[in-house]
Amino acid sequence: MVFANKPIRSAEADTGIDLSDPIKVRHAIRSGVFTEFTNTVAHGYVQGNLVILPAEFSAAFRDFCERNPRPCPLLGVSECGIPHIPSLASDMDLRTDVGGYRIFRDGIAITTTRSIEDDWRDDLVAFVLGCSFSFEQELMNEGITLRHIVEKNVSPMYVTKVDNVPAGPFGGKLVVSMRGLRPADAIRAVEITSQFPKFHGAPVHMGKPELIGIDLDRPYGGHGLTALHDDELPVFWACGATSQLAIETAKLPFAITHSKAHMVVTDLKAETFAKSFGTS
Amino acid sequence: MVFANKPIRSAEADTGIDLSDPIKVRHAIRSGVFTEFTNTVAHGYVQGNLVILPAEFSAAFRDFCERNPRPCPLLGVSECGIPHIPSLASDMDLRTDVGGYRIFRDGIAITTTRSIEDDWRDDLVAFVLGCSFSFEQELMNEGITLRHIVEKNVSPMYVTKVDNVPAGPFGGKLVVSMRGLRPADAIRAVEITSQFPKFHGAPVHMGKPELIGIDLDRPYGGHGLTALHDDELPVFWACGATSQLAIETAKLPFAITHSKAHMVVTDLKAETFAKSFGTS
Repeated sequence: MVFANKPIRSAEADTGIDLSDPIKVRHAIRSGVFTEFTNTVAHGYVQGNLVILPAEFSAAFRDFCERNPRPCPLLGVSECGIPHIPSLASDMDLRTDVGGYRIFRDGIAITTTRSIEDDWRDDLVAFVLGCSFSFEQELMNEGITLRHIVEKNVSPMYVTKVDNVPAGPFGGKLVVSMRGLRPADAIRAVEITSQFPKFHGAPVHMGKPELIGIDLDRPYGGHGLTALHDDELPVFWACGATSQLAIETAKLPFAITHSKAHMVVTDLKAETFAKSFGTS
Repeated sequence: MVFANKPIRSAEADTGIDLSDPIKVRHAIRSGVFTEFTNTVAHGYVQGNLVILPAEFSAAFRDFCERNPRPCPLLGVSECGIPHIPSLASDMDLRTDVGGYRIFRDGIAITTTRSIEDDWRDDLVAFVLGCSFSFEQELMNEGITLRHIVEKNVSPMYVTKVDNVPAGPFGGKLVVSMRGLRPADAIRAVEITSQFPKFHGAPVHMGKPELIGIDLDRPYGGHGLTALHDDELPVFWACGATSQLAIETAKLPFAITHSKAHMVVTDLKAETFAKSFGTS
């Protein structure tokens, strides 16, 4: 099986900006200089999924996250009407500092935009949820090759047949991201990512995609992976895109999320989220 | 594929002895009352592989263990000529307290016996190496079903094509034990066993047995598993039987080991070997 790749360019070569610095990345996004996916920038810093909802749904969504911590680990929540979460990055403006936004009406993504300054409202609450981009650098630091990165792609996502634990209008199916890894690397990846529950933790599944209702030829959200190699296992992690599918399933009257692979880039160091951090 | 099973009986029902107590297990072995495999007794206590060699080979064998810690994690070494390792169990006599011994001459297993009192020599050194039986109870405590236990069998072993790091005359191929686990259980098993490097640590491989030279229909040492279920992955751990194959490969003039699944039963609590023990 072969998927269509959407190539991403080497961002630094294009912009001349030091894209290892999360502040510079956000400023470059805000000014429109940097428009690429964020999985190759600000390595070592926490990235997150963005979900913005009317306040009337925020309590139920928070419950949904807490009941489904593998796909939706909460990193931060804004005050109502405030497009900032200072604990994640003091200068971050959630209306301009994400490279792509999806705007939903009645559960349907009606448009994708590069700014939500005109869409922000005083009754909105912003949630940032952990993202697997935060552990990918940890895997690479341990010598694990992530082929989708080598191929300048993003990891594909799939909708499983696994039901989330519902909360209010939110429910739906678990979405997962997939990486093709050689077995020894898959085992190391379990050991490493189990240290990071805020970035989805250990995989939820590996091998045998059909057992959780996945056809590898049918990714969710438009990004596939070139065919798995014969020496690779498909390894599946719970994915924050679960929250976007929950918004669609709930037919929420209004919501905004990030657009795939354009994540919230924070100033938090990923390594400090390791369960063993500071103990050795 | 279907393997021949050697059924093992419920030991306690036969003997009337409390076989959860490692001291009573050893005494029952010594007196000939208990003759079964040790994987269903003294749960929660460390069990080990036994390797007894002439002292002239002990330095090289110790190097071999230290260079290959996944299959051969050292738990204890006797003094030369002394068939006791008090740090493992104060009353243990390594000549009588193991349920089966294999005696090797020139690398060939010439006999299996229930006592080595007549074979012990003043120039022999005994090594005890970690064993996967020690982590099986930890897995079951976490709710993971080990089908070979349910089926009253022992886990099958396989010779891989993976070379050990040689030391003196010792080398040969890595031997692994295999358990068939559902993917979510396989992931949990990686997390749990990675906490126990002295019991072989995390698996070395899963799925795709052919990649490490394994044909599941050709186990080593005589014990197979009934066919893998469709929802199971084969999960492979480095195995202490690697040391027996190394003795065969080295054509050592004389050696004694335990006989498969008749392990050294120690008084050490398995849980105290967890990397995280005492830190939480």
